[in-house]
Amino acid sequence: MNGLVPSEFDLIKWIRDKSPKGQPSILRHIGDDCTVFDPGFTSNLAVTTDVLLEDVHFRRHRTSAYFLGQKSVIVNLSDLAAMGCRPYGCLLSLGLPPSLKPEYFYSFMEGFLQESRRWELTLLGGNLTRSDKIYANVTAWGFSSPGHGLVSRSGAKAGDALIVIGDLGFSRLGLEMLEKENLDSIHKVKDEEALADWASDSFEYRCVKAHLLPPVLIRVGNWLAENNLASAMIDVSDGLTNDLLHIARESKLEAQIEVENLPIPQQGFGEVQALQAALSGGEDYALLFTASPEQLEKLTSTYPADFPVFRVIGKLESGRAAVYLNSHGKKEKYKPEGFDHFR
Amino acid sequence: MNGLVPSEFDLIKWIRDKSPKGQPSILRHIGDDCTVFDPGFTSNLAVTTDVLLEDVHFRRHRTSAYFLGQKSVIVNLSDLAAMGCRPYGCLLSLGLPPSLKPEYFYSFMEGFLQESRRWELTLLGGNLTRSDKIYANVTAWGFSSPGHGLVSRSGAKAGDALIVIGDLGFSRLGLEMLEKENLDSIHKVKDEEALADWASDSFEYRCVKAHLLPPVLIRVGNWLAENNLASAMIDVSDGLTNDLLHIARESKLEAQIEVENLPIPQQGFGEVQALQAALSGGEDYALLFTASPEQLEKLTSTYPADFPVFRVIGKLESGRAAVYLNSHGKKEKYKPEGFDHFR
Repeated sequence: MNGLVPSEFDLIKWIRDKSPKGQPSILRHIGDDCTVFDPGFTSNLAVTTDVLLEDVHFRRHRTSAYFLGQKSVIVNLSDLAAMGCRPYGCLLSLGLPPSLKPEYFYSFMEGFLQESRRWELTLLGGNLTRSDKIYANVTAWGFSSPGHGLVSRSGAKAGDALIVIGDLGFSRLGLEMLEKENLDSIHKVKDEEALADWASDSFEYRCVKAHLLPPVLIRVGNWLAENNLASAMIDVSDGLTNDLLHIARESKLEAQIEVENLPIPQQGFGEVQALQAALSGGEDYALLFTASPEQLEKLTSTYPADFPVFRVIGKLESGRAAVYLNSHGKKEKYKPEGFDHFR
Repeated sequence: MNGLVPSEFDLIKWIRDKSPKGQPSILRHIGDDCTVFDPGFTSNLAVTTDVLLEDVHFRRHRTSAYFLGQKSVIVNLSDLAAMGCRPYGCLLSLGLPPSLKPEYFYSFMEGFLQESRRWELTLLGGNLTRSDKIYANVTAWGFSSPGHGLVSRSGAKAGDALIVIGDLGFSRLGLEMLEKENLDSIHKVKDEEALADWASDSFEYRCVKAHLLPPVLIRVGNWLAENNLASAMIDVSDGLTNDLLHIARESKLEAQIEVENLPIPQQGFGEVQALQAALSGGEDYALLFTASPEQLEKLTSTYPADFPVFRVIGKLESGRAAVYLNSHGKKEKYKPEGFDHFR
């Protein structure tokens, strides 16, 4: 930098130089009005968009720029995983306050590029603007492998089992830990090892990591789709019960959760109880899916040993689209209470 | 509304019900983790993203929700036009403050859907979040017609003419008018006719309209690309000189503007002079392109009468990538002074 402040042109050139050129199907890369590619590799192109917005989805001093860059990729990969498709490319629309140091930009981008490279999600273009609050809006697209379809929310059938892969509730507890304590030192932490050192114990590490650096279940989602083992699937981003309600509504079925079968954190934190966090905490980025008895049998007998464990947590039945919680023989209807805009 | 406040689920359902289902190539629409389509209709898929952010790109009370919805589509269509490609689909990532009335959302979406429908840019999905400031981040994709490529920024050759289609400078003057005066009544204006009534004279109308509802030059861009009449092209969003610098840099040529040939507004406004607005005002959404002598000849003889006029405003020559302004026999090098982030 030689003491000079970089211009927007410099920043975009920096991104372009650092970005892998990707597959031969990419015809125009960063630096034109549009990104252009030849989509001949698939007949199922899937597109998704998700945003991380300062003071809504994160606080500036309760994460590092590097982790934020990674997470902005991860939340989009999670949508691709939930349809069982493979990552291809993405666009990044980034807003930064002019008061931030250039190092913030570089650190964010390094996290972004590391995470996207790891999953072969090539950064192909985007947009850079000034903004009062930091935001990162990513659009990602992927594709189904030849000969395989994509898994939707609407394919569940009565009698299907309800299955979850990944943790529930830890992310919500991690958020609570980050909100409650005076943890400004976290904004200097750049990798998982440093995060483990930073945390005071393994439970705090697990919770804070679940929140700042959620797991990427792309391989699991691909495997489920390509082996035709899921009838419907969604990623858990708004809380287990809220996201299950989407499957219930799109599939027009009644969904039942067996509360005793839920994987829940060993303890709560502050005023947040473990069960409450698991049911409606949000930002888990676990995979929630349904499977017929035949699919469940095959899943059980062929499930790869190096994948995170799967847990049957309920079932789908015919009935009005709704979610019920079954616990100790009692059946209670879940009332949506998720994040609403004009309430 | 029956006095009830809508939930996020209600709002998304409202959008889904109002959105045309589009082409048969669309396999999954609003309401799944990803939008899915079969891209078999093209071997050139172009993607772009652009954002309108409150207090950066607009002020809440200096436009209407309806116009804002339209403009958020238009700025993305402009990028598609600049590559000569046809609109296909889009995703909308919308952030709204919880303090806004639901009517704001509906009015924004009506403007958005009206404009996108008009250009056959089908809304296929998106994301809704609360936010302190209003923002609309749109990702749009389009395609080149079979047998035609897309026009890039890098294809200009020495000896090419530099041509502009559309107005320059009016948008910047319109912004000045909206910033300077106490015009809160503008936020109730919903269509072009009402805007004409609202404006105090035809110059104010032209300037304010250029800013709030820029022209969509999709048909012009398609025609240029499909008749192979542009060697390089860009849309003028950051100001004529800044955007020309992109063509000069990507094509590795010296660009010269003949200042006397520029279409400039008949007068300035406030402290902004007409020439200054035309050279570096920004948000014109005009098309700036280059053409070989043969292309220019064919353009001149076949240009459709119902298109906005084209004007030759300069040329490209071999030399270091830079932009020069020629006026009254003097040649002056343009120094980039555009919108930079960390300056």
